[in-house]
Amino acid sequence: MPSDAPTIKLENTRADGATVVPYNRADANRAAIADDLVEKIGATLVPPYDDPFVIAGQGTVGQEFAQQAAAIEIALDAFLAPCSGGGLIAGCALALSAANPATKIYSVEPTGFDDTAQSLTAGVRTQIDPSAPSICDALLLEIPGALTFPINKELLTGGLVVSDADAQRAMAVLFQEFKIVAEPSGATALAAVLDGRIDTRGKSIGVVVSGGNVDPAAFLRHIEAAISV
Amino acid sequence: MPSDAPTIKLENTRADGATVVPYNRADANRAAIADDLVEKIGATLVPPYDDPFVIAGQGTVGQEFAQQAAAIEIALDAFLAPCSGGGLIAGCALALSAANPATKIYSVEPTGFDDTAQSLTAGVRTQIDPSAPSICDALLLEIPGALTFPINKELLTGGLVVSDADAQRAMAVLFQEFKIVAEPSGATALAAVLDGRIDTRGKSIGVVVSGGNVDPAAFLRHIEAAISV
Repeated sequence: MPSDAPTIKLENTRADGATVVPYNRADANRAAIADDLVEKIGATLVPPYDDPFVIAGQGTVGQEFAQQAAAIEIALDAFLAPCSGGGLIAGCALALSAANPATKIYSVEPTGFDDTAQSLTAGVRTQIDPSAPSICDALLLEIPGALTFPINKELLTGGLVVSDADAQRAMAVLFQEFKIVAEPSGATALAAVLDGRIDTRGKSIGVVVSGGNVDPAAFLRHIEAAISV
Repeated sequence: MPSDAPTIKLENTRADGATVVPYNRADANRAAIADDLVEKIGATLVPPYDDPFVIAGQGTVGQEFAQQAAAIEIALDAFLAPCSGGGLIAGCALALSAANPATKIYSVEPTGFDDTAQSLTAGVRTQIDPSAPSICDALLLEIPGALTFPINKELLTGGLVVSDADAQRAMAVLFQEFKIVAEPSGATALAAVLDGRIDTRGKSIGVVVSGGNVDPAAFLRHIEAAISV
Protein backbone atom coordinates (compact mmCIF):
# COMPACT_ATOMS: atom_id res chain seq x y z
CA MET A 1 0.00 0.00 0.00
CA PRO A 2 1.39 3.47 -0.81
CA SER A 3 2.70 5.10 2.35
CA ASP A 4 0.43 8.10 1.68
CA ALA A 5 -2.74 5.96 1.61
CA PRO A 6 -5.56 7.17 3.89
CA THR A 7 -5.17 5.95 7.48
CA ILE A 8 -8.67 4.46 7.33
CA LYS A 9 -7.63 2.25 4.38
CA LEU A 10 -4.54 1.08 6.25
CA GLU A 11 -6.39 0.40 9.49
CA ASN A 12 -9.37 -1.34 7.92
CA THR A 13 -7.05 -3.59 5.92
CA ARG A 14 -5.06 -4.49 9.04
CA ALA A 15 -8.32 -5.05 10.96
CA ASP A 16 -9.25 -7.62 8.31
CA GLY A 17 -6.10 -9.54 9.25
CA ALA A 18 -3.67 -8.39 6.56
CA THR A 19 0.03 -7.63 6.96
CA VAL A 20 0.41 -4.31 5.14
CA VAL A 21 3.71 -3.52 3.39
CA PRO A 22 4.01 0.24 2.85
CA TYR A 23 6.02 1.66 -0.07
CA ASN A 24 6.87 5.10 -1.38
CA ARG A 25 5.07 5.94 -4.64
CA ALA A 26 7.92 8.14 -5.81
CA ASP A 27 10.79 5.69 -5.77
CA ALA A 28 9.43 2.12 -5.51
CA ASN A 29 7.73 -0.24 -7.98
CA ARG A 30 4.72 -1.94 -6.42
CA ALA A 31 4.68 -4.74 -8.98
CA ALA A 32 8.28 -5.62 -8.13
CA ILE A 33 7.53 -5.50 -4.39
CA ALA A 34 4.56 -7.82 -4.91
CA ASP A 35 6.59 -10.26 -7.05
CA ASP A 36 9.26 -10.33 -4.36
CA LEU A 37 6.68 -11.11 -1.65
CA VAL A 38 5.11 -13.87 -3.75
CA GLU A 39 8.56 -15.44 -4.16
CA LYS A 40 9.49 -15.12 -0.47
CA ILE A 41 6.33 -16.33 1.23
CA GLY A 42 4.73 -18.48 -1.48
CA ALA A 43 1.72 -16.14 -1.78
CA THR A 44 -0.75 -15.98 -4.65
CA LEU A 45 -0.81 -12.65 -6.49
CA VAL A 46 -4.22 -11.05 -7.03
CA PRO A 47 -3.57 -8.30 -9.59
CA PRO A 48 -5.61 -5.10 -9.17
CA TYR A 49 -6.91 -5.07 -12.76
CA ASP A 50 -4.87 -6.92 -15.40
CA ASP A 51 -6.37 -10.38 -14.92
CA PRO A 52 -9.39 -12.02 -16.62
CA PHE A 53 -10.96 -13.16 -13.34
CA VAL A 54 -10.45 -9.77 -11.68
CA ILE A 55 -12.01 -7.99 -14.66
CA ALA A 56 -14.94 -10.44 -14.59
CA GLY A 57 -15.38 -9.89 -10.85
CA GLN A 58 -15.34 -6.11 -11.22
CA GLY A 59 -17.77 -6.54 -14.12
CA THR A 60 -20.43 -7.84 -11.72
CA VAL A 61 -21.03 -4.16 -10.91
CA GLY A 62 -22.11 -3.63 -14.51
CA GLN A 63 -24.08 -6.89 -14.44
CA GLU A 64 -26.07 -5.65 -11.42
CA PHE A 65 -26.70 -2.31 -13.15
CA ALA A 66 -28.02 -4.17 -16.21
CA GLN A 67 -30.26 -6.38 -14.06
CA GLN A 68 -31.61 -3.47 -12.00
CA ALA A 69 -32.23 -1.36 -15.11
CA ALA A 70 -34.14 -4.27 -16.66
CA ALA A 71 -36.15 -4.73 -13.44
CA ILE A 72 -37.43 -1.16 -13.64
CA GLU A 73 -37.81 -1.41 -17.41
CA ILE A 74 -35.37 1.26 -18.49
CA ALA A 75 -32.56 1.13 -21.03
CA LEU A 76 -29.36 2.80 -19.85
CA ASP A 77 -28.38 5.58 -22.25
CA ALA A 78 -24.98 6.00 -20.64
CA PHE A 79 -22.79 4.51 -17.93
CA LEU A 80 -19.73 6.00 -16.19
CA ALA A 81 -17.21 4.55 -13.76
CA PRO A 82 -13.93 5.76 -12.22
CA CYS A 83 -10.88 4.44 -14.07
CA SER A 84 -7.33 3.69 -13.02
CA GLY A 85 -5.95 0.48 -14.55
CA GLY A 86 -9.26 0.07 -16.35
CA GLY A 87 -10.48 -3.23 -14.86
CA LEU A 88 -13.73 -1.93 -13.37
CA ILE A 89 -14.82 -0.10 -16.52
CA ALA A 90 -13.69 -2.98 -18.78
CA GLY A 91 -15.65 -5.55 -16.76
CA CYS A 92 -18.70 -3.30 -16.61
CA ALA A 93 -18.46 -2.61 -20.35
CA LEU A 94 -18.45 -6.35 -21.09
CA ALA A 95 -21.58 -6.88 -18.96
CA LEU A 96 -23.44 -3.77 -20.12
CA SER A 97 -22.70 -4.10 -23.83
CA ALA A 98 -23.98 -7.69 -23.70
CA ALA A 99 -27.20 -6.46 -22.05
CA ASN A 100 -27.67 -3.39 -24.26
CA PRO A 101 -25.20 -2.52 -27.04
CA ALA A 102 -26.68 1.01 -27.29
CA THR A 103 -25.43 2.08 -23.84
CA LYS A 104 -22.63 4.63 -24.18
CA ILE A 105 -19.85 3.73 -21.75
CA TYR A 106 -17.28 6.21 -20.38
CA SER A 107 -14.20 5.90 -18.19
CA VAL A 108 -13.56 8.84 -15.84
CA GLU A 109 -10.05 9.85 -14.71
CA PRO A 110 -8.56 12.74 -12.73
CA THR A 111 -6.73 15.55 -14.49
CA GLY A 112 -3.08 14.62 -15.05
CA PHE A 113 -3.75 10.88 -14.94
CA ASP A 114 -5.81 10.57 -18.11
CA ASP A 115 -3.82 7.73 -19.65
CA THR A 116 -6.97 5.83 -20.64
CA ALA A 117 -8.58 8.92 -22.22
CA GLN A 118 -5.36 9.65 -24.15
CA SER A 119 -4.98 6.00 -25.14
CA LEU A 120 -8.57 5.81 -26.38
CA THR A 121 -7.96 8.88 -28.55
CA ALA A 122 -4.64 7.58 -29.84
CA GLY A 123 -5.94 4.04 -30.32
CA VAL A 124 -2.89 2.58 -28.56
CA ARG A 125 -1.77 2.27 -24.93
CA THR A 126 -0.14 5.58 -24.12
CA GLN A 127 2.18 6.21 -21.17
CA ILE A 128 1.67 9.61 -19.55
CA ASP A 129 4.00 11.70 -17.43
CA PRO A 130 1.95 13.41 -14.68
CA SER A 131 3.12 16.93 -13.93
CA ALA A 132 1.08 17.39 -10.73
CA PRO A 133 -0.44 15.16 -8.06
CA SER A 134 -4.19 14.62 -7.60
CA ILE A 135 -6.37 14.10 -4.53
CA CYS A 136 -7.76 11.03 -6.33
CA ASP A 137 -5.19 8.76 -4.71
CA ALA A 138 -6.67 5.50 -6.00
CA LEU A 139 -6.48 6.55 -9.66
CA LEU A 140 -2.81 7.51 -10.02
CA LEU A 141 -1.72 5.16 -12.80
CA GLU A 142 0.21 6.22 -15.88
CA ILE A 143 -0.63 3.57 -18.48
CA PRO A 144 -3.71 1.41 -19.11
CA GLY A 145 -3.57 -2.34 -18.50
CA ALA A 146 -2.40 -4.71 -21.25
CA LEU A 147 -5.56 -6.80 -20.89
CA THR A 148 -8.00 -4.03 -19.98
CA PHE A 149 -7.14 -1.57 -22.77
CA PRO A 150 -8.10 -3.79 -25.75
CA ILE A 151 -11.51 -4.34 -24.11
CA ASN A 152 -11.95 -0.62 -23.41
CA LYS A 153 -10.77 0.35 -26.90
CA GLU A 154 -13.49 -1.85 -28.38
CA LEU A 155 -16.37 -1.04 -26.03
CA LEU A 156 -15.95 2.51 -24.66
CA THR A 157 -17.45 5.61 -26.25
CA GLY A 158 -14.76 7.77 -24.67
CA GLY A 159 -12.67 8.76 -21.70
CA LEU A 160 -13.70 11.75 -19.55
CA VAL A 161 -11.44 13.79 -17.26
CA VAL A 162 -12.38 15.71 -14.09
CA SER A 163 -10.47 18.12 -11.87
CA ASP A 164 -9.87 17.77 -8.12
CA ALA A 165 -12.44 20.55 -7.54
CA ASP A 166 -15.00 18.62 -9.62
CA ALA A 167 -14.40 15.52 -7.47
CA GLN A 168 -14.81 17.55 -4.28
CA ARG A 169 -18.08 19.00 -5.52
CA ALA A 170 -19.38 15.51 -6.26
CA MET A 171 -18.31 14.39 -2.76
CA ALA A 172 -20.33 17.26 -1.29
CA VAL A 173 -23.41 16.34 -3.34
CA LEU A 174 -23.07 12.71 -2.24
CA PHE A 175 -22.79 13.87 1.39
CA GLN A 176 -25.62 16.39 1.26
CA GLU A 177 -28.11 14.73 -1.05
CA PHE A 178 -27.39 11.01 -1.09
CA LYS A 179 -25.87 10.57 2.41
CA ILE A 180 -23.04 8.53 0.89
CA VAL A 181 -19.39 8.76 1.97
CA ALA A 182 -17.12 8.71 -1.11
CA GLU A 183 -13.39 9.28 -1.39
CA PRO A 184 -12.29 11.70 -4.15
CA SER A 185 -11.48 8.85 -6.55
CA GLY A 186 -14.87 7.28 -5.88
CA ALA A 187 -16.76 10.46 -6.74
CA THR A 188 -15.13 11.12 -10.14
CA ALA A 189 -17.81 9.47 -12.29
CA LEU A 190 -20.57 11.50 -10.63
CA ALA A 191 -18.36 14.59 -11.00
CA ALA A 192 -18.30 14.11 -14.78
CA VAL A 193 -22.11 13.99 -14.86
CA LEU A 194 -22.57 17.01 -12.55
CA ASP A 195 -20.10 18.96 -14.62
CA GLY A 196 -22.12 18.36 -17.76
CA ARG A 197 -19.51 16.36 -19.66
CA ILE A 198 -22.23 14.25 -21.25
CA ASP A 199 -25.79 14.96 -22.33
CA THR A 200 -28.08 13.92 -19.48
CA ARG A 201 -31.44 15.65 -20.07
CA GLY A 202 -34.17 13.01 -20.32
CA LYS A 203 -31.59 10.21 -20.24
CA SER A 204 -31.09 7.25 -17.90
CA ILE A 205 -27.50 7.32 -16.69
CA GLY A 206 -25.68 4.73 -14.58
CA VAL A 207 -22.95 6.12 -12.33
CA VAL A 208 -20.58 4.04 -10.20
CA VAL A 209 -19.56 5.53 -6.85
CA SER A 210 -16.78 3.25 -5.69
CA GLY A 211 -14.35 3.87 -2.83
CA GLY A 212 -14.99 5.41 0.58
CA ASN A 213 -11.49 5.26 2.02
CA VAL A 214 -11.23 8.80 3.32
CA ASP A 215 -10.14 9.97 6.75
CA PRO A 216 -12.70 12.10 8.64
CA ALA A 217 -10.63 15.31 8.63
CA ALA A 218 -9.84 14.99 4.91
CA PHE A 219 -13.52 14.29 4.23
CA LEU A 220 -14.53 17.55 5.91
CA ARG A 221 -11.76 19.46 4.09
CA HIS A 222 -13.03 18.27 0.69
CA ILE A 223 -16.70 18.95 1.49
CA GLU A 224 -15.96 22.43 2.83
CA ALA A 225 -13.75 23.25 -0.15
CA ALA A 226 -16.71 22.44 -2.41
CA ILE A 227 -19.31 24.27 -0.34
CA SER A 228 -17.21 27.43 0.01
CA VAL A 229 -16.86 27.81 -3.78
CA MET B 1 -38.54 24.14 12.03
CA PRO B 2 -36.67 24.64 15.33
CA SER B 3 -34.25 27.53 14.97
CA ASP B 4 -31.40 25.23 16.10
CA ALA B 5 -32.05 22.72 13.28
CA PRO B 6 -28.98 21.81 11.21
CA THR B 7 -28.30 24.32 8.42
CA ILE B 8 -28.34 21.49 5.88
CA LYS B 9 -31.93 20.59 6.90
CA LEU B 10 -33.01 24.21 6.55
CA GLU B 11 -31.28 24.71 3.20
CA ASN B 12 -32.42 21.43 1.65
CA THR B 13 -36.02 22.15 2.69
CA ARG B 14 -35.86 25.64 1.18
CA ALA B 15 -34.23 24.21 -1.96
CA ASP B 16 -37.27 21.95 -2.33
CA GLY B 17 -39.43 25.09 -2.52
CA ALA B 18 -40.69 25.38 1.07
CA THR B 19 -41.17 28.55 3.10
CA VAL B 20 -39.56 27.67 6.42
CA VAL B 21 -40.95 29.22 9.63
CA PRO B 22 -38.33 29.02 12.38
CA TYR B 23 -39.33 28.82 16.05
CA ASN B 24 -37.54 28.60 19.36
CA ARG B 25 -37.86 25.17 21.01
CA ALA B 26 -37.68 26.67 24.47
CA ASP B 27 -40.62 29.06 24.39
CA ALA B 28 -42.84 28.23 21.40
CA ASN B 29 -45.37 25.50 20.69
CA ARG B 30 -44.89 24.08 17.22
CA ALA B 31 -48.39 22.59 17.11
CA ALA B 32 -49.91 25.99 17.83
CA ILE B 33 -47.70 27.65 15.20
CA ALA B 34 -48.79 25.04 12.65
CA ASP B 35 -52.50 25.44 13.52
CA ASP B 36 -52.13 29.18 13.13
CA LEU B 37 -50.53 28.79 9.67
CA VAL B 38 -53.23 26.37 8.56
CA GLU B 39 -55.86 28.91 9.59
CA LYS B 40 -54.08 31.85 7.94
CA ILE B 41 -53.11 30.39 4.57
CA GLY B 42 -55.61 27.55 4.21
CA ALA B 43 -52.89 24.90 4.27
CA THR B 44 -53.32 21.20 4.93
CA LEU B 45 -51.55 19.96 8.05
CA VAL B 46 -49.38 16.86 7.67
CA PRO B 47 -48.69 15.77 11.27
CA PRO B 48 -45.23 14.30 11.92
CA TYR B 49 -46.54 11.09 13.55
CA ASP B 50 -50.04 11.18 15.07
CA ASP B 51 -52.02 10.37 11.95
CA PRO B 52 -53.13 7.01 10.54
CA PHE B 53 -51.87 7.74 7.02
CA VAL B 54 -48.52 9.06 8.27
CA ILE B 55 -48.06 5.95 10.43
CA ALA B 56 -48.95 3.74 7.47
CA GLY B 57 -46.51 5.62 5.24
CA GLN B 58 -43.69 5.32 7.76
CA GLY B 59 -44.62 1.64 8.11
CA THR B 60 -43.54 1.00 4.51
CA VAL B 61 -40.00 0.91 5.93
CA GLY B 62 -41.01 -2.15 7.98
CA GLN B 63 -42.87 -3.58 5.00
CA GLU B 64 -39.71 -3.38 2.88
CA PHE B 65 -37.69 -5.02 5.67
CA ALA B 66 -40.24 -7.86 5.80
CA GLN B 67 -40.15 -8.30 2.01
CA GLN B 68 -36.36 -8.20 1.82
CA ALA B 69 -36.00 -10.64 4.73
CA ALA B 70 -38.43 -13.02 3.00
CA ALA B 71 -36.51 -12.66 -0.27
CA ILE B 72 -33.31 -13.90 1.36
CA GLU B 73 -35.23 -16.48 3.38
CA ILE B 74 -34.51 -15.25 6.87
CA ALA B 75 -36.84 -14.55 9.77
CA LEU B 76 -36.03 -11.31 11.61
CA ASP B 77 -35.35 -12.08 15.28
CA ALA B 78 -35.39 -8.41 16.21
CA PHE B 79 -35.98 -4.97 14.69
CA LEU B 80 -35.00 -1.54 16.02
CA ALA B 81 -35.82 1.99 14.87
CA PRO B 82 -35.22 5.49 16.26
CA CYS B 83 -38.24 6.85 18.14
CA SER B 84 -39.56 10.34 18.79
CA GLY B 85 -43.36 10.61 18.52
CA GLY B 86 -43.43 6.89 17.74
CA GLY B 87 -44.88 6.93 14.21
CA LEU B 88 -41.99 5.21 12.44
CA ILE B 89 -41.73 2.37 14.96
CA ALA B 90 -45.52 1.99 15.20
CA GLY B 91 -45.90 1.71 11.42
CA CYS B 92 -42.96 -0.69 11.18
CA ALA B 93 -44.37 -2.77 14.05
CA LEU B 94 -47.71 -3.12 12.25
CA ALA B 95 -46.00 -4.31 9.06
CA LEU B 96 -43.45 -6.58 10.74
CA SER B 97 -45.80 -8.21 13.22
CA ALA B 98 -48.15 -9.06 10.35
CA ALA B 99 -45.24 -10.67 8.47
CA ASN B 100 -43.74 -12.48 11.48
CA PRO B 101 -45.25 -12.19 14.97
CA ALA B 102 -42.05 -13.63 16.51
CA THR B 103 -39.92 -10.57 15.61
CA LYS B 104 -39.03 -8.60 18.75
CA ILE B 105 -39.51 -4.90 18.06
CA TYR B 106 -37.75 -2.11 19.97
CA SER B 107 -37.98 1.68 19.95
CA VAL B 108 -34.69 3.52 20.58
CA GLU B 109 -34.55 6.96 22.21
CA PRO B 110 -31.78 9.27 23.46
CA THR B 111 -31.05 9.58 27.18
CA GLY B 112 -33.32 12.18 28.77
CA PHE B 113 -36.02 11.83 26.09
CA ASP B 114 -37.12 8.26 26.87
CA ASP B 115 -40.84 8.99 27.13
CA THR B 116 -41.77 5.97 25.02
CA ALA B 117 -39.53 3.64 27.08
CA GLN B 118 -41.01 4.98 30.31
CA SER B 119 -44.55 4.83 28.93
CA LEU B 120 -44.07 1.22 27.78
CA THR B 121 -42.90 0.30 31.30
CA ALA B 122 -45.75 2.20 32.98
CA GLY B 123 -48.35 0.97 30.51
CA VAL B 124 -49.68 4.51 30.02
CA ARG B 125 -48.53 7.61 28.11
CA THR B 126 -46.06 9.30 30.42
CA GLN B 127 -44.87 12.91 30.12
CA ILE B 128 -41.20 13.37 30.93
CA ASP B 129 -39.28 16.45 32.01
CA PRO B 130 -35.87 16.45 30.30
CA SER B 131 -33.09 17.72 32.51
CA ALA B 132 -30.42 18.00 29.81
CA PRO B 133 -30.33 18.48 26.03
CA SER B 134 -29.24 15.78 23.56
CA ILE B 135 -27.36 15.91 20.25
CA CYS B 136 -30.23 13.81 18.82
CA ASP B 137 -32.13 16.91 17.71
CA ALA B 138 -34.85 15.04 15.81
CA LEU B 139 -35.89 12.95 18.85
CA LEU B 140 -36.58 15.63 21.45
CA LEU B 141 -40.22 14.89 22.33
CA GLU B 142 -41.57 14.53 25.83
CA ILE B 143 -44.69 12.39 25.47
CA PRO B 144 -45.65 9.61 23.01
CA GLY B 145 -48.39 10.19 20.45
CA ALA B 146 -52.03 9.55 21.30
CA LEU B 147 -52.43 7.31 18.25
CA THR B 148 -48.92 5.83 18.14
CA PHE B 149 -48.66 4.76 21.79
CA PRO B 150 -51.57 2.26 21.83
CA ILE B 151 -50.00 0.53 18.79
CA ASN B 152 -46.55 0.51 20.38
CA LYS B 153 -47.92 -0.70 23.73
CA GLU B 154 -49.45 -3.69 21.99
CA LEU B 155 -46.65 -4.60 19.58
CA LEU B 156 -43.28 -3.52 21.06
CA THR B 157 -41.09 -5.77 23.19
CA GLY B 158 -39.53 -2.74 24.86
CA GLY B 159 -37.97 0.70 24.65
CA LEU B 160 -34.18 1.08 24.58
CA VAL B 161 -32.19 4.20 25.48
CA VAL B 162 -28.76 5.29 24.22
CA SER B 163 -26.40 8.09 25.21
CA ASP B 164 -25.03 10.85 22.96
CA ALA B 165 -21.64 9.06 23.02
CA ASP B 166 -23.32 5.82 21.88
CA ALA B 167 -24.93 7.69 18.97
CA GLN B 168 -21.59 9.25 18.00
CA ARG B 169 -19.91 5.82 18.03
CA ALA B 170 -22.61 4.45 15.73
CA MET B 171 -22.14 7.46 13.41
CA ALA B 172 -18.42 6.65 13.22
CA VAL B 173 -19.10 2.98 12.42
CA LEU B 174 -21.56 4.03 9.71
CA PHE B 175 -18.94 6.40 8.28
CA GLN B 176 -15.99 4.01 8.47
CA GLU B 177 -17.61 0.66 7.68
CA PHE B 178 -20.87 1.34 5.83
CA LYS B 179 -19.99 4.66 4.12
CA ILE B 180 -23.34 6.08 5.25
CA VAL B 181 -23.89 9.62 6.52
CA ALA B 182 -26.25 9.58 9.53
CA GLU B 183 -27.21 12.36 11.89
CA PRO B 184 -27.05 11.51 15.64
CA SER B 185 -30.81 10.78 15.81
CA GLY B 186 -30.53 8.53 12.76
CA ALA B 187 -27.77 6.41 14.29
CA THR B 188 -29.49 5.63 17.62
CA ALA B 189 -30.95 2.24 16.64
CA LEU B 190 -27.56 1.00 15.44
CA ALA B 191 -26.06 2.44 18.64
CA ALA B 192 -28.34 0.22 20.74
CA VAL B 193 -27.15 -2.85 18.84
CA LEU B 194 -23.44 -1.92 18.98
CA ASP B 195 -23.77 -1.24 22.68
CA GLY B 196 -25.11 -4.76 23.30
CA ARG B 197 -28.56 -3.73 24.55
CA ILE B 198 -30.09 -6.82 22.94
CA ASP B 199 -28.80 -10.33 22.30
CA THR B 200 -27.42 -10.40 18.75
CA ARG B 201 -25.22 -13.51 18.52
CA GLY B 202 -26.47 -15.76 15.74
CA LYS B 203 -29.55 -13.56 15.24
CA SER B 204 -30.92 -11.66 12.25
CA ILE B 205 -31.50 -8.07 13.29
CA GLY B 206 -33.15 -5.27 11.32
CA VAL B 207 -31.85 -1.78 12.08
CA VAL B 208 -33.28 1.45 10.67
CA VAL B 209 -30.77 4.25 9.96
CA SER B 210 -32.97 7.24 9.25
CA GLY B 211 -31.91 10.86 9.05
CA GLY B 212 -28.79 12.38 7.53
CA ASN B 213 -29.39 16.04 8.29
CA VAL B 214 -26.02 16.92 9.74
CA ASP B 215 -23.76 19.83 8.86
CA PRO B 216 -20.24 18.88 7.69
CA ALA B 217 -18.39 20.43 10.66
CA ALA B 218 -20.77 18.82 13.19
CA PHE B 219 -20.40 15.51 11.36
CA LEU B 220 -16.62 15.61 11.78
CA ARG B 221 -16.95 16.65 15.43
CA HIS B 222 -19.16 13.64 16.22
CA ILE B 223 -16.96 11.17 14.29
CA GLU B 224 -13.78 12.46 15.93
CA ALA B 225 -15.37 12.39 19.39
CA ALA B 226 -16.12 8.71 18.85
CA ILE B 227 -12.72 7.82 17.37
CA SER B 228 -10.75 9.60 20.10
CA VAL B 229 -12.44 7.58 22.89
